[in-house]
Amino acid sequence: MIRVFVTGGTFDKTYDEIGGRLSFKDTHLPEMLRLGRSRVEVSIRTLMMIDSLDMTGDDRDTIAHNCVVCEESRIVVTHGTDTMVETAAIIAARVTGKTVVLTGAMIPYAFGSSDGLFNLGSALSFAQTLAPGVYVAMNGQHFRWDRVRKNRKTGVFEAIR
Amino acid sequence: MIRVFVTGGTFDKTYDEIGGRLSFKDTHLPEMLRLGRSRVEVSIRTLMMIDSLDMTGDDRDTIAHNCVVCEESRIVVTHGTDTMVETAAIIAARVTGKTVVLTGAMIPYAFGSSDGLFNLGSALSFAQTLAPGVYVAMNGQHFRWDRVRKNRKTGVFEAIR
Amino acid sequence: MIRVFVTGGTFDKTYDEIGGRLSFKDTHLPEMLRLGRSRVEVSIRTLMMIDSLDMTGDDRDTIAHNCVVCEESRIVVTHGTDTMVETAAIIAARVTGKTVVLTGAMIPYAFGSSDGLFNLGSALSFAQTLAPGVYVAMNGQHFRWDRVRKNRKTGVFEAIR
Amino acid sequence: MIRVFVTGGTFDKTYDEIGGRLSFKDTHLPEMLRLGRSRVEVSIRTLMMIDSLDMTGDDRDTIAHNCVVCEESRIVVTHGTDTMVETAAIIAARVTGKTVVLTGAMIPYAFGSSDGLFNLGSALSFAQTLAPGVYVAMNGQHFRWDRVRKNRKTGVFEAIR
Repeated sequence: MIRVFVTGGTFDKTYDEIGGRLSFKDTHLPEMLRLGRSRVEVSIRTLMMIDSLDMTGDDRDTIAHNCVVCEESRIVVTHGTDTMVETAAIIAARVTGKTVVLTGAMIPYAFGSSDGLFNLGSALSFAQTLAPGVYVAMNGQHFRWDRVRKNRKTGVFEAIR
Repeated sequence: MIRVFVTGGTFDKTYDEIGGRLSFKDTHLPEMLRLGRSRVEVSIRTLMMIDSLDMTGDDRDTIAHNCVVCEESRIVVTHGTDTMVETAAIIAARVTGKTVVLTGAMIPYAFGSSDGLFNLGSALSFAQTLAPGVYVAMNGQHFRWDRVRKNRKTGVFEAIR
Repeated sequence: MIRVFVTGGTFDKTYDEIGGRLSFKDTHLPEMLRLGRSRVEVSIRTLMMIDSLDMTGDDRDTIAHNCVVCEESRIVVTHGTDTMVETAAIIAARVTGKTVVLTGAMIPYAFGSSDGLFNLGSALSFAQTLAPGVYVAMNGQHFRWDRVRKNRKTGVFEAIR
Repeated sequence: MIRVFVTGGTFDKTYDEIGGRLSFKDTHLPEMLRLGRSRVEVSIRTLMMIDSLDMTGDDRDTIAHNCVVCEESRIVVTHGTDTMVETAAIIAARVTGKTVVLTGAMIPYAFGSSDGLFNLGSALSFAQTLAPGVYVAMNGQHFRWDRVRKNRKTGVFEAIR
């Protein structure tokens, strides 16, 4: 059983038809798992539904706390890409003996041509096989939380030494 | 570097507008990796482009042979789901010391709502982390080649003991 | 109020996940009208759900009969493209004083990149504005039933004199 | 031959992957016409690429002027929905003897599930069949420029007397 914590991010941005803006409503995770014909046993809980640029220290505490107290030892966190690495560091300082994989998307799932479905398949697979630790899974790759940064110009996650 | 061998299957079925039939043309793999924003280093080679129900013993020999002789020790094979397990057994009898992951799709990628993008993200991730052996990666799960069968009624891959 | 008669055709072909084949289930018309945010008042009736290559004389009689007896004077018929012109001729021999527009698709709606949504918007618009008569609406164009043929090589409907 | 003037609007909004915002780049019109398998002869010109809430009096003058001076007597204008009716009034005050159809979308085409493809098929069809005048074509319906308003709460165009 894998625990999935939803926090929002591009993954779950949707288009507000009346306002003509991007916004958040419900998570697309269950629909994405259905489209992917996923048979992985998951338990999904939405902790917040926000842009990761708006995420506060309290929000990160909430995420880390939920990783600590949940029963499952394998966890996927969906998260905006802009501050994913910061949240990973907070989780790493608090959680031990569990495999935590943060993932997200560059393109909203609602746009159809999303990288979200690819990343979700990837993150669930890494969560099943990686040793305890905190990781970022993006672009089909995985990085230890302290070995990665997001390149803001290209949108790509890069290894750092 | 992961070697990807393309053999066809539902993954790559396309719609023939003039004939009104499903058919095979070129593989969608590069486009799928682009949509998934994949940064995994891959080397793609199309071995055949067929429905796995039409796959012969010679075809399976070709696939196994290519797994043996290629330089890479981590390999993903895209394959029709109907005989994926048979091909996995042939590969397992011939290949040692390499991680080979077979994957496919229930819905053609060209239909948009495909499980292929999810499975591709999953298979590339399992190929990076699993110990040497031959595996089937479907529905977000992975199975050793001799521990799985496709349930023809539900379309789901199931563990066998 | 526009009457819509559904007869099947590529418009409504769907992918049978278990059999790996194209097949017919329910019509996609209501979903397409919803996606198109259509506010045209329509009354939809499915007469049959078949490939137009399998359509018999009896089937065409059924379609023409329904056009004759329905209350509405503006009618859209969704139809496979291969024999759309034959059916249009049968309708034209039987129906007077009504505007009947036949339309269809080259790509199944279920494939996402369909011409069906474009043709549906077009056919409903022509049905509101054209004088009584029987027409084929394809590729954004309209043709009188006796001034058109389908080019089987290109898949395009062409004017004939 | 139908002249198409592109002015932007939701129709052409795209997702800026790096900035995480909706923005404008090139028009999707040619791609939409290709997906719709349109065979209507069109000549496309992009006049501006803006949100219709940002449209100035000068911008509307530019649109009306282009409708006056172009050779074609049948014209489609793609436009944001919020001020489409205002622009229609300016065009109506300046253009005579031509059929001008304004259309737009509630959902960006780039989101896949767009009403844009439906509306484009509809607008091109109305442009071919309606008498000279200025019209708004939305939701499969057409309205004279002085007989319509957008309901900001529901996003739907409604007839007024």
